[in-house]
Amino acid sequence: MGGIAIDTTGVPLPQETVDGVLNSDACLFGAIGGEKWDTLPRELRPETGLLKFREEMGVYANLRPAIIYDELVNASTLKPEVITGVDIMIVRELIGGIYFGKPRENDGFKAFNTMVYTKPEIVRIGKTAFELAMKRDKRVCSVDKANVLEVSQLWRDTMNELSKDYPEVTLSHMYVDNAAMQLVRNPKQFDVIVTGNIFGDILSDTASMVVGSIGLLPSASTGDKTAIYEPIHGSAPDIAGMGIANPLATIVSAAMMLRYSLNEEKAADLIEESIKSVLKDGYRTKDLAAYDAKEVLNTSAMGDVIVKYI
Amino acid sequence: MGGIAIDTTGVPLPQETVDGVLNSDACLFGAIGGEKWDTLPRELRPETGLLKFREEMGVYANLRPAIIYDELVNASTLKPEVITGVDIMIVRELIGGIYFGKPRENDGFKAFNTMVYTKPEIVRIGKTAFELAMKRDKRVCSVDKANVLEVSQLWRDTMNELSKDYPEVTLSHMYVDNAAMQLVRNPKQFDVIVTGNIFGDILSDTASMVVGSIGLLPSASTGDKTAIYEPIHGSAPDIAGMGIANPLATIVSAAMMLRYSLNEEKAADLIEESIKSVLKDGYRTKDLAAYDAKEVLNTSAMGDVIVKYI
Ligand SMILES: CC(C)[C@H](C(=O)O)[C@@H](O)C(=O)O
Ligand SMILES: CC(C)[C@H](C(=O)O)[C@@H](O)C(=O)O
Repeated sequence: MGGIAIDTTGVPLPQETVDGVLNSDACLFGAIGGEKWDTLPRELRPETGLLKFREEMGVYANLRPAIIYDELVNASTLKPEVITGVDIMIVRELIGGIYFGKPRENDGFKAFNTMVYTKPEIVRIGKTAFELAMKRDKRVCSVDKANVLEVSQLWRDTMNELSKDYPEVTLSHMYVDNAAMQLVRNPKQFDVIVTGNIFGDILSDTASMVVGSIGLLPSASTGDKTAIYEPIHGSAPDIAGMGIANPLATIVSAAMMLRYSLNEEKAADLIEESIKSVLKDGYRTKDLAAYDAKEVLNTSAMGDVIVKYI
Repeated sequence: MGGIAIDTTGVPLPQETVDGVLNSDACLFGAIGGEKWDTLPRELRPETGLLKFREEMGVYANLRPAIIYDELVNASTLKPEVITGVDIMIVRELIGGIYFGKPRENDGFKAFNTMVYTKPEIVRIGKTAFELAMKRDKRVCSVDKANVLEVSQLWRDTMNELSKDYPEVTLSHMYVDNAAMQLVRNPKQFDVIVTGNIFGDILSDTASMVVGSIGLLPSASTGDKTAIYEPIHGSAPDIAGMGIANPLATIVSAAMMLRYSLNEEKAADLIEESIKSVLKDGYRTKDLAAYDAKEVLNTSAMGDVIVKYI
């Protein structure tokens, strides 16, 4: 799917791809998008294919963990003491909100989109967050803009109601502007963050900078039918073919897939431990070259080293 | 207006206040909101009054400068080398977008808001940004989510069109998720940022952390009728009455008012220079106590010292 599908089949998401993934246990997703397809009509662009893909797969819960590797504590632009020990799980609603809301229109003079949620959609993603919190530090921070938006008020009221089913979990609320600020001011305060589609899009990118490089962060998108694992970074067309992309986010995504969809706990551990050792031994891709690098590797050499360690 | 108006008149924005400000050259605004009024019906809350106030004053352009004080370069959670020399002007559209869009509704099961812009609204705020850039480093970065939202596509197309009138200014575009990340990764890359209402709300709070304390940042909201000057921070009910609020953001807002609305350039300079000297001499409020403080002052003592230096 994406650009390659447009080039070979004319559409960003061929039915064959949809069927193939629905017939699989899980999907490891690369990244999509590039200038070549940016000027196509909206319905033919890679991003439209991605959104349709998420929708057809029913993956409503996008989990974006932000965890610091001790070896890379200097890679962030934030001070080490601010980020050491950060362990945040961002739970982003992925197939609703303003991304999918209708009506939506652009007549060249006036354009609009609709940010919409129903109670069942909010309960569904809320449950994911509370369940995750039960296995972690038992704190959920729900992010909205309830002081301005009706849709956020429903979000907040629903989370409050739902929290009664999870008496052990502490629920707090934060406005999205404040949350963006708090992620930079004091990221350690967060355990699980749950939020809507576009707020989650923005906050998870902010959180990636806490970690130091967007090339490090995996994600899992789950629902009732299947699961998709993908790095949170995009296709980075500006560095395509140069061999300097950081493959770690994709490899960690594969580890998450082994752990959560394929029940291959041990394989997942092996991959994650190898990555830690590789980092400890000073292997770096270019984006991290400035941080205690002993050897800077290109994309595939980094993959080879990880395989060797495994 | 706000809580005090609710308590004394029953509504968050009395007509008297509207008339009073419209009959003035400018308005210096405090901050609104507090738990006491959070459970009132939406139309009676302080925030609703604030939004109505902005709308009635026609202040479509909200200017939020983020400038580093050399003396406080250690106050940010970001590393000094990342922020030294940062000088960003965020131009936020203030009376349109999802804050004001209709229809909007919450029936307890389904709720929605509308993010809407028309071309004239985008042109108007775009002009403000380009004009400001002409007096600065001649670079405008327009932030949107055009890969997903129709309303952002109109925004982007309109900015591109408008940029033809400003051949000396370089226009770039950035998706909002990436912009939030870049503000943390490398804030020095920005000169003027122009964006819609809710994206500007989120990004300006993020930028405040680059500067180190939200207690430092002023803002100006301008339009065709009058101008409002206010700190970007809220009313901080958690510290109300403790004498530890930082008054600098409000004082710098007053300086902006003198400069831009009242033509009192010299008075503005005096205030700004006094603040710099006060900081240089080590006076700090509690939020900045950890950063090279010689003396930590309460809110009004800080005001007194600034007056003395003036
Ligand atoms: C490519 C884009 C449509 C996508 C999104 O906004 O969801 C991306 O930014 C992401 O976060 O996965
Ligand atoms: C209080 C709130 C309605 C307001 C906003 O969202 O505009 C505030 O966050 C701001 O940025 O001025």
